[in-house]
Amino acid sequence: MTKNDFMKQAANAAMENMKTQGGPFGAVIVKDNKIIATGSNRVVPNNDPTAHAEIQAIRAAAAKLGTFDLSDCDVYTSCEPCPMCLGAIYWAKVKNVYYANTRYDAAEIGFDDNFIYEELEKPMDKRSINFIKLDSTEATESFEIWKKTENKKEY
Amino acid sequence: MTKNDFMKQAANAAMENMKTQGGPFGAVIVKDNKIIATGSNRVVPNNDPTAHAEIQAIRAAAAKLGTFDLSDCDVYTSCEPCPMCLGAIYWAKVKNVYYANTRYDAAEIGFDDNFIYEELEKPMDKRSINFIKLDSTEATESFEIWKKTENKKEY
Repeated sequence: MTKNDFMKQAANAAMENMKTQGGPFGAVIVKDNKIIATGSNRVVPNNDPTAHAEIQAIRAAAAKLGTFDLSDCDVYTSCEPCPMCLGAIYWAKVKNVYYANTRYDAAEIGFDDNFIYEELEKPMDKRSINFIKLDSTEATESFEIWKKTENKKEY
Repeated sequence: MTKNDFMKQAANAAMENMKTQGGPFGAVIVKDNKIIATGSNRVVPNNDPTAHAEIQAIRAAAAKLGTFDLSDCDVYTSCEPCPMCLGAIYWAKVKNVYYANTRYDAAEIGFDDNFIYEELEKPMDKRSINFIKLDSTEATESFEIWKKTENKKEY
């Protein structure tokens, strides 16, 4: 299969998804030139604000491969990842991300992707959600314990 | 309970989590002055790169309340959210986010939070993961169909 074929599968997942109250977003994860997982936006039907196509596909691929490290995988997504999905892509350490529609296209049909990108770049006190630092000796201690822990699995 | 009590619960979740191969991160979701969900970082034990404390807590709270909209909730997290969790927080539309440790503290004990923030601010062609635009008529069409769909649930 070609890159365009994989993208077509991601876009088809978006199309199919709308038939069952999902949003117009689909993604596939490709390893060794094969699709190993598919995801689509299930926020509304699943009552899960994190159920974006890329998150769903990454979770499914990681479960299938039995590892949180997808560094030998590519993501094909019908739309440029939002900041949440971009973060997930970095944590999963995928190799390449192919996308079709952009964050601006998504904004035009009513999704907040670009707004969230703009919020992220603002200092905390200028954001629309309040971010308040609240010191905690227990939280500090948890990091100190982690630092001292031997044989921990880093990622 | 006071704000400091809620933060203590989030930090305690981080502490407890390390006993079962989890990372030093915990979060609680508070509604009407009550904890309605708790999450901790289960990336390694669950083989799920998206299983950060805030994502876990948001998913649990949304499932419990039966809605993807957590606009009447606050998040208490033992560490400043990474970009993935920050995105999830915006999608869930929570009111306030209280955090203890910072992204720089997290970087110091080996977590990539700050690195990912830096990557997000770079233009796509300067990032460590390749982002490649691949046009798709099907992806374009999926957005056009969405635009024309009536009675869709927007969020």
